[in-house]
Amino acid sequence: MKNIVQAVEISASKPSLSDNTADLDRLKRSVRQATGQEYVTCPLPDVAGAAGSFRAAGFQGAAVIRDTGSGVEIIRVFSRMPQKLPGMALDLGTTHLEACLVDLLTGQEVSRVSREHTQGQFGADILTRIHYAEQNAGLALLQQATVSDINAMAADLAEGAGVQSGEIMALGVAGNTAMTHLLLGLSPYHMCREPYIPLANSVDIFRARDLGLGLSPGAPVWVAPNVGSYFGGDLLAGIVACDLDLEEQPCMLVDVGTNAEVVLGGRDWLLACAGAAGPALEGGVAQMGMQAGPGAIGQVSIDPDSKRLDYSTIGGEKALGICGSGLIDLAAQMYLAGMMDTRGKFRPESMQERFIEDEDNPSFTVVQGVHSGHGQPVVVRQSDINALIRSKAAMYAVLSTLVQQVGLSFADLGRINVAGAFGRHINPEKAVVLGMLPDLPPDVYHPVGNTSLMGAVRAITDFGARQRIMDAAGRITYMELNVNQEFMHRFSGARFIPHTDTSLFPSVPRL
Amino acid sequence: MKNIVQAVEISASKPSLSDNTADLDRLKRSVRQATGQEYVTCPLPDVAGAAGSFRAAGFQGAAVIRDTGSGVEIIRVFSRMPQKLPGMALDLGTTHLEACLVDLLTGQEVSRVSREHTQGQFGADILTRIHYAEQNAGLALLQQATVSDINAMAADLAEGAGVQSGEIMALGVAGNTAMTHLLLGLSPYHMCREPYIPLANSVDIFRARDLGLGLSPGAPVWVAPNVGSYFGGDLLAGIVACDLDLEEQPCMLVDVGTNAEVVLGGRDWLLACAGAAGPALEGGVAQMGMQAGPGAIGQVSIDPDSKRLDYSTIGGEKALGICGSGLIDLAAQMYLAGMMDTRGKFRPESMQERFIEDEDNPSFTVVQGVHSGHGQPVVVRQSDINALIRSKAAMYAVLSTLVQQVGLSFADLGRINVAGAFGRHINPEKAVVLGMLPDLPPDVYHPVGNTSLMGAVRAITDFGARQRIMDAAGRITYMELNVNQEFMHRFSGARFIPHTDTSLFPSVPRL
Repeated sequence: MKNIVQAVEISASKPSLSDNTADLDRLKRSVRQATGQEYVTCPLPDVAGAAGSFRAAGFQGAAVIRDTGSGVEIIRVFSRMPQKLPGMALDLGTTHLEACLVDLLTGQEVSRVSREHTQGQFGADILTRIHYAEQNAGLALLQQATVSDINAMAADLAEGAGVQSGEIMALGVAGNTAMTHLLLGLSPYHMCREPYIPLANSVDIFRARDLGLGLSPGAPVWVAPNVGSYFGGDLLAGIVACDLDLEEQPCMLVDVGTNAEVVLGGRDWLLACAGAAGPALEGGVAQMGMQAGPGAIGQVSIDPDSKRLDYSTIGGEKALGICGSGLIDLAAQMYLAGMMDTRGKFRPESMQERFIEDEDNPSFTVVQGVHSGHGQPVVVRQSDINALIRSKAAMYAVLSTLVQQVGLSFADLGRINVAGAFGRHINPEKAVVLGMLPDLPPDVYHPVGNTSLMGAVRAITDFGARQRIMDAAGRITYMELNVNQEFMHRFSGARFIPHTDTSLFPSVPRL
Repeated sequence: MKNIVQAVEISASKPSLSDNTADLDRLKRSVRQATGQEYVTCPLPDVAGAAGSFRAAGFQGAAVIRDTGSGVEIIRVFSRMPQKLPGMALDLGTTHLEACLVDLLTGQEVSRVSREHTQGQFGADILTRIHYAEQNAGLALLQQATVSDINAMAADLAEGAGVQSGEIMALGVAGNTAMTHLLLGLSPYHMCREPYIPLANSVDIFRARDLGLGLSPGAPVWVAPNVGSYFGGDLLAGIVACDLDLEEQPCMLVDVGTNAEVVLGGRDWLLACAGAAGPALEGGVAQMGMQAGPGAIGQVSIDPDSKRLDYSTIGGEKALGICGSGLIDLAAQMYLAGMMDTRGKFRPESMQERFIEDEDNPSFTVVQGVHSGHGQPVVVRQSDINALIRSKAAMYAVLSTLVQQVGLSFADLGRINVAGAFGRHINPEKAVVLGMLPDLPPDVYHPVGNTSLMGAVRAITDFGARQRIMDAAGRITYMELNVNQEFMHRFSGARFIPHTDTSLFPSVPRL
């Protein structure tokens, strides 16, 4: 464990006619003494502040430093050891940003915030933004939107922790390849054109001032490397966050954000795929529903005999909509109660008054308007279920293609880490009923939260984790599914509940 | 010999679906192959340009790189090996700036310019500027003046060399401690207050963009370290420029700019002093005269018998004024012709019609108005001679105090390097007559030109020279003359022509 920055106590004798060492050189000497490191540097833009603070404090206090590998760099000087040494970690998502502040002195998280990514005003999806970046000043506008978001989050995080955002001493960022490019002001032009080459997969640590970030100006910024255009630093960070790269037995990380991304492997090899499956799955989960939040239906049960439907909402409030995990619960329960067939088509005759006739797109009433939070009924349309079926089919096809690729079966897996909001709220047993996840004992599935953010935290608090992320980047084999016939075949077979081949899902009752 | 930056040919295979290495990573790999260095970095602000250029050139061309000691840093990428690799060196003087452009591929100087330092608008001397820097925004204004000067010089140098200033790939700067602080935006506040401590004596190499310099934005900028408030990087650069630090036998470097600065020593030890003597000497040389340039009287001879005065001007043009070396020539000749006494006082009776009566400040006509370039007579006032006498006394006192301090005599010196315009134009034999320089054979004196600029050139063309400058900084002993009683005593004794103790100047005729 070694933080990306550290605070060390320093002191020096005061200047005199017989010791006329300059302030900066006196500071460097004291850092040399405190660290035992011979090669101490201070970037020019930080010199005046650092040397001036050291003098103002009477040539004692604390230096915040960074180990550069070949020496030590002085970032800032305080008059005394700081009470907190705040470091910020950021999950740079396409749609959402989530960040936390960690006190690097204790390793404890002290605040956390999330927000919509305002870059979305320039396009909801990655491809639209990549094209927007090609316009005149487009790249700069996209970058500025993200920088402004980060600065706003830094201010909120700081307020939550009782510090100033200008005291944040480090930033770790993990995002997908496109978001990373846009943050860094690097053109993503070639990412969406064959052969799909990013401008940079790995940039060296830079300083907050280089991007106009409102942190301590010399704060080092570490950005997770990418493996390619379709495999970003968010997932690399996730691999290390759940220690997938240390596993002896093959394990999996499944991360469903804007893309569905899956990594299979352990300490000896890592195989990954991502991309095609994502949009369908996110579309299916998000199109009709709402984010997992207060008022979102998260759990559903339907009695197979009476068809009585019970639900619970997040926070226990009146229902406002249905989130992804609620939709999965609902679909699984409807199937088990005989309210939809193996293709996911509604069975009006068993849905009674909940069925709403519509030639093109009938609906199912989950909550009547009189019971909802907004007075409108909460309904699920046939098209929503169709999208869910496509998504779950894609997910299962991804997982099975990946496992089969290396000659394994699901039963060989040690654990399956399910990341993200999807992982946090999903009930694996229900997802198994739908055939979205393989038919394994529930304890194989581990919800691991926002692994991208966790990985970014690890990166700023643990030098070894940064090394492991770089190592993982170097040994990942990425499998392209868009051109994979096997995947397309498996996708077709998975468009039934639970699957065309029901022997794959022995625990799911046959109807 | 190793330049601060180097150009290396690079090439890489083009991206394909089977080799999707990102542009930057491909570039780094090619630099790794070209240099054999494992650790290759690229600062974030240079990434887009460098990787973009590499792609635009078809993944081949040339990289301009810098050896950081622990690896290699990419500064810029060209589509082919550049014809020239321009590096700029600057002598950052208080009054004057002189700079040259060196082609780092050949080591040849390709252009040279000089100009007044426009920072002078804020104060002619160092102390005034230090006080100006204490005002609100004063430091920033002083810095901006110098940056603008450097940018204008870079443009002129580039034009003279047939390149663009944005193609200048490195800058080496040597200046006194105050000028260095003001260029770097570092407060000189404590330099003029006991115990006279600079904010920084040595800053790490930074990049042109950090100061808004109009060179290649990532161009490394090396600034010569200082030893203390009164001993700057200009003299350290000078020590290495004339190889004083390699001499077996004790030698001297005498540099008269805004300050008179003298270093005595060789490869084993270095003793230096500066300061007090300077202002008087520069005042004496510059107050009445002009810079050594076309029309300046540079040499004077007076026939002791006929009192006939002959002179020559620089460039052979009609006389416009008299420069420092001309003044020394004149005073020595007037003394030898009996036209002034050993105290430097005019002897009207031997000056005939050239004497201009004035109760407070009589003058001597060097050139009559009908023969001058501007129609006005060129005259030297008694006060000018008085200032010259003070200056020469200070100079001799500095030299003799320094030599005596280490138990040597002038005869022990191997060579005396005389730097600057002073050294270029002075006739040592005349300076000996005045008692400004010790009575040694003329071949002991070596005019060595602008050693500060030469040292800056060495620093950007030779890694070893940079090391030697750092080493010299570490082993110089600085002697403070302001509080030195011995110096004051010697100063008084030297206020006669050639000296109170004429036995010190056996070669000078006694009158």
